[in-house]
Formats: sequence, structure tokens, C-alpha cells
Amino acid sequence: MTNPEERGARPGNGTLIIIGGHEAKEGRREILKEVARRVKGGRLVIATVASHKPEGYFESYQEGFDGLGVGELVELYVEERHEASREEKLRLFEGATGVFFSGGDQLRITSQIGDTPLEAHIREVYESGGVIAGTSAGASVMCETMLVKGTSQESYRIGDLQMAPGLGLMRGVIIDQHFAERGRIGRLLGAVAQNPRVLGIGIDEDTAIVVQDSHFTVIGSGGVYVADGAGITHSNIVEGRTEDPLSLYDVRLHVLSAGDAFDLEGRKPVPAQALQEAVSSD
Amino acid sequence: MTNPEERGARPGNGTLIIIGGHEAKEGRREILKEVARRVKGGRLVIATVASHKPEGYFESYQEGFDGLGVGELVELYVEERHEASREEKLRLFEGATGVFFSGGDQLRITSQIGDTPLEAHIREVYESGGVIAGTSAGASVMCETMLVKGTSQESYRIGDLQMAPGLGLMRGVIIDQHFAERGRIGRLLGAVAQNPRVLGIGIDEDTAIVVQDSHFTVIGSGGVYVADGAGITHSNIVEGRTEDPLSLYDVRLHVLSAGDAFDLEGRKPVPAQALQEAVSSD
Repeated sequence: MTNPEERGARPGNGTLIIIGGHEAKEGRREILKEVARRVKGGRLVIATVASHKPEGYFESYQEGFDGLGVGELVELYVEERHEASREEKLRLFEGATGVFFSGGDQLRITSQIGDTPLEAHIREVYESGGVIAGTSAGASVMCETMLVKGTSQESYRIGDLQMAPGLGLMRGVIIDQHFAERGRIGRLLGAVAQNPRVLGIGIDEDTAIVVQDSHFTVIGSGGVYVADGAGITHSNIVEGRTEDPLSLYDVRLHVLSAGDAFDLEGRKPVPAQALQEAVSSD
Repeated sequence: MTNPEERGARPGNGTLIIIGGHEAKEGRREILKEVARRVKGGRLVIATVASHKPEGYFESYQEGFDGLGVGELVELYVEERHEASREEKLRLFEGATGVFFSGGDQLRITSQIGDTPLEAHIREVYESGGVIAGTSAGASVMCETMLVKGTSQESYRIGDLQMAPGLGLMRGVIIDQHFAERGRIGRLLGAVAQNPRVLGIGIDEDTAIVVQDSHFTVIGSGGVYVADGAGITHSNIVEGRTEDPLSLYDVRLHVLSAGDAFDLEGRKPVPAQALQEAVSSD
């Protein structure tokens, strides 16, 4: 068994808000409200780095966060990796208490800002108690090992999965997004089969997990699936051919929704109420 | 716990071949071959009853079964329920050793032929050791309680499920089809949550389970998901509102593929080899 301390967010740090994509930007705006609440009137950096064409993203978040009490919104975009050391980019983080990664291509985030001064500034926001949020590609990138590509809406094949090193803000899990909408249970289980040390977490659209220390709570309108492979008794991922469909016995699966919470160390759902105090005290 | 004898096919009867839709009708035709093998040169009744417009279905199966050694293919269609007692329809079953339900609307099958002389003839084919196959709607209809409608490719809502009495050839399970292709894990778990007595079985396209007595084997190119709710520790389906997303803890999930088998009494995957003799002896 893995050291239980190696699962979840790093203790003593800020909050991660990991969103399955398409969070509501009008109406109840539950998820954006939660982000805003944790930005606490400071500056929120909207990182559109995942996108090849960032046009429109920042504007839509300006509207989405309108009236929610965020101090200031600034856009961070990096066309080429060398920009991630530029003083003008780093200055965007002055007074920042939150970073929000929009959607696009998760590999664009890691290849452009991984191991740069810019990434160090993001980590600093997090380590000083700020909030790091990410939606869609911005959600996947939170993990140590992130899902990049894999089958959606067809039978999952053993060889059909591309993973890469992520930002590593959340440990011991692998995140998938647009989960129900794109029929991704197969590829999430495929990822868990490769190393059941990681918990598989699939997040529906307009749904998020709010991660602090070694637990998370669910907010938003959809579901969150947690696939726990600790008890797996058989899989064919080693002896099967890459084009074979997956065979995997005895996965433990939880379906969570708003009000549910999850203990990442204990690998089990817990009453959200028990955590409420801890979560809202921050 | 349910009496274990109440799960699976009725002992001593024939074989069920339950297909997740879109079985290959050219190329390897693995599933149609398995149906043909079990028809053993007799007559195969292609029941297109599920369809509102049966045109083309029969012809595509004539081509699909071409050269596979089936004695004779005949089409059974029922426009109105009263036809299900007509002598000319019942005569189609003379010498029949197999029935194949094509896709469409599962409610059309049960409302048109449920509790008719025609249904009795189908049962007779089964009880005398023949094969009953069904694809898509024809797969759902095999269960005692069948899935009729529910969310695909979006977060599953508690109230978003329509079920109805099926033909009841397979007991203690609930079948869903086009499983990976239409992202249906949510609705299958929703059905299991309503009564964990039933095992949830989700079948991908071009994939089938071959059911004999209280076990099945998997054939075809995709996956089969088995959701076992026996250990569920919490669900919100009673106290939640119908528009709420599902919350469900501790489901046991198996992903099976060609070569895997499942013991329906013991609720566990078993090595296919152990069953091979029993299955192929028939």
C-alpha cells in the first residue's frame, strides 16, 4: 500500500478546484462562485495557456466572474515557452490569490510552462494558501501523471491511452473530465489498471471537486466517479495485445454528487457534514 | 441475499445470446457465427417486431448469416398485437431452433407479443434447447425488468429512468446496450441502485454475452461491464429529488472481454477455460 500521506493536495497549502469542463457562466454559477469566494478579493489570473487560440476565453470569464467579488482578473497567455520567464508575465502574479486554467490541450500547459519561473509563481500562489482552479484540460493537468488522450464513446482498448507528467499539484490520483458527456469510464479504468496506486476520478461537466489536504467535496450539477483499483484481482493489460479490449476484475466504484465528500487517504466517501467545518473555515 | 438459483438463465433450457447492438454482419462475424452454430442447421426466426418500420432488417440478416450454415431464415413481424395469435405467424416456428430479435423499441416487443401464443412459441424454442438471441432493444428485452429509457452521455439524474417488465428469459439482471458508445454507466448504476438484487450488465456494440444456466461468457470485439451493488453502503435515490444526480457508494465493477466468463450465482468472474467444456459441449 502507498503511504497514505502521498494522496491528495499537499498539506498546509491552498485549495484546488478541479472542474469537469463547461462550468455554468451564467445563472447560479455555483463553481465560479466557489472560486471567487476563495480568491477573497485578490487578483485572479486566468491562464488560457491550454488553448492554441486564446481569443474569447478571457472575455467569457470576465463575464462569468462579474459581480462575484473577485478583486481583479488578468489574462496569462504564453505563445512560446521562452515567454514563461519574461518579467511582464511574472508581474501578473503580483497580489494574485488565485489562478484559473481554462480548457484546451493539457500538453500545451505542461510543455509551455513546466519547470519555468512562471510555474514557480503558480506554485507560490498555491503554497501561500491561494486557490488553483482548472477546467477540462486545466483539470487533467493537476495530476502528477495526467491523461492526455484515450478512447471516448467506444470500447476501451488496452493500448489506447496517452499519459504525460502533469503539474503534480494533486498527488495519487488521475483525473478525467467531460466524464458522463463523453463516455469515459473505459479509459479511466484503463488508467487505473496501469497502476492501481492512483485513484481514478472522473468529473462531469459543470461539476467540480474542491480539494484541501487529503479530502475533497463535490460541488456543481453533475456527478463525480471515483474508481479505486486497490482490490483488483485480475487485469489483462500486460499479457493482452494493444488492440484488445480491457479485462479488469473487482474495481470499487463510487458515484458522488453535490454534498458528498471523499477521504483520499482512507479511500472512502465520508459525510460531507463532517468536513464542512474544516472546509468552510478556510 | 437472493436465492442464487434465481439468477441467470433457467437451468436445463437453451442458450441466450445477448448483443450490445451493431454486431458485425461482414468480416469475422463472430457473434452471428455463434448464433448460427447454436441454431444447428434448423430454422432461425428473425423477429423484427421491435421496429416500427421493419424494412431492410430481414434482408441485412439474410446477408449476415449467408454461408454460416443456418437451415432457413424466416421473418417474423407483428404490426398489431392481434396478429400474435394468427396461425400463419405461429407456423413460422415449425422446425425453429433459434429466434433472433433485432433492434428498435423494446416496448414494442413486449406490448405486441407479451402473453400471446407467439410468445409461448418463443419460450418453447428456448425450453427445448434452442437459442434466443437479441441485439440492442432485443437485448434489453431479455430481462425480467428491462431498461426502456434513461440518460445517455450526461450526468445521470435519479428520476431519469424508465423501466418495464421484459420477457424474463434472463433473471436477476438488468441489461444495457450500446454501452461504451452511448456513455451509459450512469443509468446502469441508477438501475442497480433501485434494487441491488439485480446485477447490472452493460454490453458494448459488436459484443455479446452467451448465457447458459447461471454463467455467461463474453464474445465479440468490445467490453462487458458488470455492476454488482450487493455491497452498496449508501445511495440517495430515496431521499434525493428526481432532478438530483446520483450518489452511490461501494459498487463492485468488473470489465470483461472476449475470453472472460462470469458466474451469476457467485457474482464473480471466472476463468473462461473452466467453463469452456460445459459451453462448447452444447
